Amino acid sequence: MKTSAIVAGVGMTRFGKHMDTGLKALGAQGVEAAIKDAGIVAGDIEAAYVGNAAAGLITGQESIRGEVILRGMGIGRIPVINVENACASASTALNQACAMVTAGIYDVVLALGVEKLYDPDKKKTFGAFTGAVDVEMLQAIMEGLKQNAKAGGAESASSGAGEKRSMFMDIYAMMARAHMDQYGTTAEQFAGVSAKNSFHGSMNERAQFREAMTVEEVLAAPMIAEPLTRPMCSPIGDGAAAAILVSEAKARELGIDKPVRVVSSVLRSGWDHGPDEAGTVEVCAGEAYEEAGVGPEDIDVIECHDASAPAELVSYESLGLCAKGEGGRLIDEGATKLGGRIPVNTSGGLLRKGHPIGATGIAQAVELTEQLQGRSGERQVEGAKVALAQNGGGTIGTDAAAMCVTILSR
Amino acid sequence: MKTSAIVAGVGMTRFGKHMDTGLKALGAQGVEAAIKDAGIVAGDIEAAYVGNAAAGLITGQESIRGEVILRGMGIGRIPVINVENACASASTALNQACAMVTAGIYDVVLALGVEKLYDPDKKKTFGAFTGAVDVEMLQAIMEGLKQNAKAGGAESASSGAGEKRSMFMDIYAMMARAHMDQYGTTAEQFAGVSAKNSFHGSMNERAQFREAMTVEEVLAAPMIAEPLTRPMCSPIGDGAAAAILVSEAKARELGIDKPVRVVSSVLRSGWDHGPDEAGTVEVCAGEAYEEAGVGPEDIDVIECHDASAPAELVSYESLGLCAKGEGGRLIDEGATKLGGRIPVNTSGGLLRKGHPIGATGIAQAVELTEQLQGRSGERQVEGAKVALAQNGGGTIGTDAAAMCVTILSR
Repeated sequence: MKTSAIVAGVGMTRFGKHMDTGLKALGAQGVEAAIKDAGIVAGDIEAAYVGNAAAGLITGQESIRGEVILRGMGIGRIPVINVENACASASTALNQACAMVTAGIYDVVLALGVEKLYDPDKKKTFGAFTGAVDVEMLQAIMEGLKQNAKAGGAESASSGAGEKRSMFMDIYAMMARAHMDQYGTTAEQFAGVSAKNSFHGSMNERAQFREAMTVEEVLAAPMIAEPLTRPMCSPIGDGAAAAILVSEAKARELGIDKPVRVVSSVLRSGWDHGPDEAGTVEVCAGEAYEEAGVGPEDIDVIECHDASAPAELVSYESLGLCAKGEGGRLIDEGATKLGGRIPVNTSGGLLRKGHPIGATGIAQAVELTEQLQGRSGERQVEGAKVALAQNGGGTIGTDAAAMCVTILSR
Repeated sequence: MKTSAIVAGVGMTRFGKHMDTGLKALGAQGVEAAIKDAGIVAGDIEAAYVGNAAAGLITGQESIRGEVILRGMGIGRIPVINVENACASASTALNQACAMVTAGIYDVVLALGVEKLYDPDKKKTFGAFTGAVDVEMLQAIMEGLKQNAKAGGAESASSGAGEKRSMFMDIYAMMARAHMDQYGTTAEQFAGVSAKNSFHGSMNERAQFREAMTVEEVLAAPMIAEPLTRPMCSPIGDGAAAAILVSEAKARELGIDKPVRVVSSVLRSGWDHGPDEAGTVEVCAGEAYEEAGVGPEDIDVIECHDASAPAELVSYESLGLCAKGEGGRLIDEGATKLGGRIPVNTSGGLLRKGHPIGATGIAQAVELTEQLQGRSGERQVEGAKVALAQNGGGTIGTDAAAMCVTILSR
């Protein structure tokens, strides 16, 4: 979808473990930061899209999540649309907000992504992940993972998936082993993704983890699912991220010059395509590039969905940064590191900034907006003019359930 | 929001207790019926909005509900947006689908509302309702209800709200008692709403309850929360309802003459208004009337949110069918019964057709579309040209969390 929505302001909480801060307070902090950044007042907001994936299972707030969070902030009796697409919930909120502004239905729309995953009862947290697959088929999926683990001889994959870790890491581990088998990609290269993102995250005060790690340290960390060690897996976290999207007219009124614009936002489902058809990242990226009138070579900075280290490496290929199978080479060359040809996940990514699932898509937009505005401090990609975010959610069949690719430009 | 979306087709399951049919199967039945009715194929659908309120808590399908339901039906890799607004989830889906068609972003959009409330574990079902208020404030709400029950001497309201019934019925009972105190409305008049809707429902093969009841029978039924007897409270139910919204161009292509159009759809939050400010139904209805260029006197048939009998009676006043306090008179006169001046809830309403919460808003649109197309059989309102639906969801502060008023015309 082509859009003309302008990002007037962004804001987010630090991602991490916020045991004493509830869903409402986290969400409110994100919204207040974005309102302040946009230079508007709460009463200017004409509609709100609120992305969250797991509050029903974690906090019991199954319904009207947005209304509960936004109440009492001075926002009018506006439409609040609660949207959900697993880890792509926030991108979905952003996508819809941009559509409404582009259509001229509203001039000022809030997009909020918020998630509270930590709970004193850890079973709740891990239980929430199983809600992002087809639960009627869950038994079959778990059985398949067990069989696969036995066949591959990977001990860790048979040890209580869904209890000590998200079953998604088993899926990512399979993806990693397949890439290693097919293209000769190495565990060192996957570790290189995590090391790079830890370097980026060490400069981001809103990142969950600030420690810079070497490839060796990443490899020496505890194994989660062969070949993924802990720093190759995104952590559990809490947090919120918000953006205020405005029309051209409102941007002028706010005195925004050189606005950051969401030029394209492509949301699609990953279901039901054959093994020979393009993956959903490719489909979304291809459409987004076309709508934005740019190619991979024009992108200055990327936030991609590194829920695991191999996921980032495979995204390089899916987004067209390199040919199939050459993702490892980009890591070896340092191309995606700050200072390289095309820096990826300057925020630290999901691996190090953190991944409060329903907040992630908008947190990507926060990082990219600030990059395009030249206010990323020591993480700044000099002269960044075009940026891309890729955010996927859930799994269904052999692909992500929901995928969103967004291109922003200044 | 003004809209130009045309309802090309509608479909729904029978509402009721479907112990052997899961969320996926129910949803698929609704979608297949709407696709058939529209004369399109599944591959024509360009985007889908899926409303559901409680699957996370009831079935464990916390995330990607729409993707799971719609998979394998021949629908392309389209954007699926899961939306939620408690009992107004389906109206929210319809509202968003209409916006997209009106904006010219898509020509064919599916809006689906689906809910599976019955579960072998009844605690799950009742637990889901507490998710439609601010759960961080739930303790205070329950305490308030207890105090109120003691003060009012209503024995039933202190007996385990949230276990044997939804706490919403306590709120509706308070609303009923306040109306009786202020305007002299009687329990017989509330019972009259239920009797009327049971008459309508007796003619609707998709209604959960087909038995016609007299006022005396309604009054003699078991007391749920004074003065509400069981038939004055909407039941627990499962079901799905779907609509295909298309652009003018697509409607012509499909050979639709005399199309039913959604001319206005107003969605708002009910939070944070003073006791002297208009309620959210009034605000939404006023805006919808203005956008549609009609008044209450122009409406031929209404589906309103009769989650309880007093809620329907109060809606008469909020929608402008009569002055404040005169809702009871409309029942006495039979004005809102089939054959009366302005028939309300010809489907049987939430009370008798049933109320699978996330499906209700689109089920209202199914009834009204068929009424405007003259295919409602013995329930037909002769010559109906303009119809209105009112659907609310959740509660926050002293009003509904989400409210939607939709006007359709032919």
